[in-house]
Amino acid sequence: MITVALAKGALLKDSVSRFAKAGLDFSNLLDKGNRQLMVPSACGRAKAILVRNGDVPVYVAYGQAQLGVVGYDVLREHQLPVAHLVDLGFGGCRMAVAVKDTSAYKSASDLPPHCRVASKFTHCARSFFNQLDLPVELVHLTGSVELGPITGMAEAIVDLVATGRTLRDNGLVAIEELFYSTARLVGNPLALRLDHGDLQRIIDSIRSNDHPNNFSS
Amino acid sequence: MITVALAKGALLKDSVSRFAKAGLDFSNLLDKGNRQLMVPSACGRAKAILVRNGDVPVYVAYGQAQLGVVGYDVLREHQLPVAHLVDLGFGGCRMAVAVKDTSAYKSASDLPPHCRVASKFTHCARSFFNQLDLPVELVHLTGSVELGPITGMAEAIVDLVATGRTLRDNGLVAIEELFYSTARLVGNPLALRLDHGDLQRIIDSIRSNDHPNNFSS
Repeated sequence: MITVALAKGALLKDSVSRFAKAGLDFSNLLDKGNRQLMVPSACGRAKAILVRNGDVPVYVAYGQAQLGVVGYDVLREHQLPVAHLVDLGFGGCRMAVAVKDTSAYKSASDLPPHCRVASKFTHCARSFFNQLDLPVELVHLTGSVELGPITGMAEAIVDLVATGRTLRDNGLVAIEELFYSTARLVGNPLALRLDHGDLQRIIDSIRSNDHPNNFSS
Repeated sequence: MITVALAKGALLKDSVSRFAKAGLDFSNLLDKGNRQLMVPSACGRAKAILVRNGDVPVYVAYGQAQLGVVGYDVLREHQLPVAHLVDLGFGGCRMAVAVKDTSAYKSASDLPPHCRVASKFTHCARSFFNQLDLPVELVHLTGSVELGPITGMAEAIVDLVATGRTLRDNGLVAIEELFYSTARLVGNPLALRLDHGDLQRIIDSIRSNDHPNNFSS
């Protein structure tokens, strides 16, 4: 049986709709009353596990799920061995460096060496500042990263920006983009190699559903 | 001005009540409509920042908050340089090893070498299994750790157990306890050393509020 790992939260609705078009109906997951973490598809041929964003690549990498949908930001941050299959196009947001809107910094390279930068995505931030050859002290936070500059703990943050409203509400402004992130269909490499066609049919069907930037097309 | 870092979630209500007895009223934080992450105390002498559990020791260690309330589990996991001041007694839960209730393992040392163990608390788990001299492969998850054994990804989990209901609902059973965790009042070491009495009065007042296991008494 095929198992699909889906992320709770913002990506769930579109993920369910894309799998529905590929013939796997997990709409039970969208019921507000649903508390189950594992639900069968309506056809009974597959099941979905509902996990946190960051855990999707873990279940796919270990082969507990053959397919998964997760933001590119998570894939960049955790670097787990999963195959990137399709850029699904939805869930678009930017990984950006942001500072106080009263600050004089207009780009990341304006930041003073050894300043503190708060982020949930310290791996992404580390590699960005390394490429910039700017040594910074990264402070790992798990939520509300915008409090870093507000409390004076950090000069800047590296965080996901969708509409920009959270930044504005907190008097912050994005000054540089690290990369653009969208939802991706990922797969377990071994499962893909051993596949007799079932997985490939689902992948093809999801891929044919628009969006230009498919990796294997 | 004194800044206090408080954790969102289960510990918040009791934390606010303990600070209220010490003369700092942060009850605004308990309003369901509150969306502010930083609120002044009713007296105006202090402010509270509302952050995620794991971020409390970060703000205290960096000195953005002089005091904070956080679970001992987080302190054990993140090992940041904060002073442990008072065991507040509430928020009690056990860090435990759990397995499927159909499993034959009766204690952690029954687990097979090199088996997989899923946890949000991989640092705590690592040091526990090291002491046991049992090599295991730790799988870091960020939520719903009980899915580890259910999906067959992990033989066991290391997780916080309060009532035990989540374990039971998922067909798991705790077989060994790593440690017992309660909420702790922590402080920034430098702020405590430079204190002219203001912080100490708050600490003393919170400490005098019962509970036997105070570290400095």
